[in-house]
Amino acid sequence: MPEKTELQSIWFSEKNETVSIIDQRQLPHRLVIEEIDGLGQMCAAIREMHLRGAPLIGVAAAYGMYLACRQDTGSGSSESFGEAAGLLLATRPTAVNLAWAVERQLKALRDIDDPKRRIAAALATAREIEAEDIESCRLIGEHGVALIEEIHKKKQSAVNVLTHCNAGWLACVRHGTATSPIYEAHRRSIPLHVWVDETRPRNQGARLTAWELAQAGVPHTVIVDNAGGHLMQHGQVDLVIVGSDRTTRTGDVANKIGTYLKALAARDNGVPFYVALPSSSIDWNIRDGIAEIPIEERDPEEVGFVAGALKHGGEITEVRILPAESPAANYAFDVTPSRLVTGLITERGICAATEQGIAALFS
Amino acid sequence: MPEKTELQSIWFSEKNETVSIIDQRQLPHRLVIEEIDGLGQMCAAIREMHLRGAPLIGVAAAYGMYLACRQDTGSGSSESFGEAAGLLLATRPTAVNLAWAVERQLKALRDIDDPKRRIAAALATAREIEAEDIESCRLIGEHGVALIEEIHKKKQSAVNVLTHCNAGWLACVRHGTATSPIYEAHRRSIPLHVWVDETRPRNQGARLTAWELAQAGVPHTVIVDNAGGHLMQHGQVDLVIVGSDRTTRTGDVANKIGTYLKALAARDNGVPFYVALPSSSIDWNIRDGIAEIPIEERDPEEVGFVAGALKHGGEITEVRILPAESPAANYAFDVTPSRLVTGLITERGICAATEQGIAALFS
Repeated sequence: MPEKTELQSIWFSEKNETVSIIDQRQLPHRLVIEEIDGLGQMCAAIREMHLRGAPLIGVAAAYGMYLACRQDTGSGSSESFGEAAGLLLATRPTAVNLAWAVERQLKALRDIDDPKRRIAAALATAREIEAEDIESCRLIGEHGVALIEEIHKKKQSAVNVLTHCNAGWLACVRHGTATSPIYEAHRRSIPLHVWVDETRPRNQGARLTAWELAQAGVPHTVIVDNAGGHLMQHGQVDLVIVGSDRTTRTGDVANKIGTYLKALAARDNGVPFYVALPSSSIDWNIRDGIAEIPIEERDPEEVGFVAGALKHGGEITEVRILPAESPAANYAFDVTPSRLVTGLITERGICAATEQGIAALFS
Repeated sequence: MPEKTELQSIWFSEKNETVSIIDQRQLPHRLVIEEIDGLGQMCAAIREMHLRGAPLIGVAAAYGMYLACRQDTGSGSSESFGEAAGLLLATRPTAVNLAWAVERQLKALRDIDDPKRRIAAALATAREIEAEDIESCRLIGEHGVALIEEIHKKKQSAVNVLTHCNAGWLACVRHGTATSPIYEAHRRSIPLHVWVDETRPRNQGARLTAWELAQAGVPHTVIVDNAGGHLMQHGQVDLVIVGSDRTTRTGDVANKIGTYLKALAARDNGVPFYVALPSSSIDWNIRDGIAEIPIEERDPEEVGFVAGALKHGGEITEVRILPAESPAANYAFDVTPSRLVTGLITERGICAATEQGIAALFS
């Protein structure tokens, strides 16, 4: 998709000085562009998941700081930056890129008193983070494609990749993380087929990854989150690649709820399990992912209701799938311990999911 | 529920000589009773899952043979029984109870030439299978409750049980298999709480198990199928109990797709994983579940569309969750290898999921 139309998940228009995003809640049924006017709207867009995906949340937060600077042409005190930063940090607790991008803006803006220069600096930092993310994702594709290529050489038939949630360009800016090796393999005409976990409760696989792959013409099949283990038992999966919302310095991986179950099945069936991530989602302060990474609990209504297009008519609506009396719980992420991860695909190359492996690439 | 109103998932009315079922597709939104007039309607009800659950399918097939006898008052040849049997066997390939119940009817009817006596014999066999299922389920509860009681004694707080799909009375006639120990614990006032996997694609957990538990006043919380591993990592699950559509003589367990993933997570976190089943679902002819149990592939539309009640208005409808261009695959079951199963809860007691363990109970 980005190749065809240069569409990105977020972009700044020089001409109008506006920040635009795709309202991903409407996909795959409608492609809706949303112009973001200010900090409040950006916070709402992140919190209510108009946009999502760890790398994209980082870029969006950086633009959020820029929008805050633009609004705050008066005092421009570091307090008001601090307030904007606090509002952004409160939107989503698990993705580390959010904090990382906000920190970087705070550092960049700390010593600038002139409002106009501040705005310019905030924009420059946001654009820098955006460009770096695009380049990181591109490099992840360059490194990761070797894994697919190698399997294809051995197998001499289409490589079956399973992915969970959406770690595509909709979760980043372009290319995606987990999808970047897939798109690169497709560009190189390596035959492959992707099993797309639907990824309840918000169906980011069924709605977003499937849409991305369909747009790009990559063969794929959507399955329920329950099916991956069965497919692996029957030799139908050659490789798992997922993204990450936060990876510890020891290689534990927080990602969309259910990732851990797929990692267990991959281990049980000898299927390689890789995590694709830009180093911006590594949390250098944490060693034990299960004990230390906060897991966001979201509104139980996301479990109780499913959004989609009406079978007759196509209007987008929600249906309730639970008895009125039944409560639900909604944990958004889980942590896959590093022992289940075959390797990490980063912008600097592939490494073991260990402290030594990560340190060797990012010393 | 059965205690309060004596409602069953299937029942024969002596007065009207009719077989009635609950049309489970309408739950939890509407309680719809369907009267089954003949073999064709029973086959459709099984195939289109008005009713489902291995034990119930067995009972329904037995009543299907009775309805076939009633229709076929003419020739009554063993050929026409054979035809009826064939039609019933073709409805669902994975549940072994179906074949078991049909076989039993064929045996019972084989030597009876008189049409009236044949009808009476078929009805008697169906009622016998129904009564045996009720008693088996009751005994599974008696045996299984000890597991919950023991955990409660150690823990001195509410026991958290996780279950997948619906192995409740809606899957049997009364009590259920996996739910029977839960209902028995609730009757004995042992504090417990049930994590209910929603069980995509057909949401039998969210729709049926949650409804059953709500009716019975058992505390429960619905979660997406992705969440169980995270809960187990954090000590939130004391015990897993699931049902089975077919168990090999060596203890491999075919059950709703996704069961295997939960068994892996239970093993990884030291959580006991039990399977509750009447011996009618043991397949004595099969040793290797993964290689030998046929796994039903159902209509991909079950993945692509989700049924529920409209948020506004409450009308039951379906929404499409996939891009129009994206194909889906729909494997209905998976096989959990016996090495991951802590034990089998049967009507004769609890045994190891091994050939020796099963043989010791059912020699």
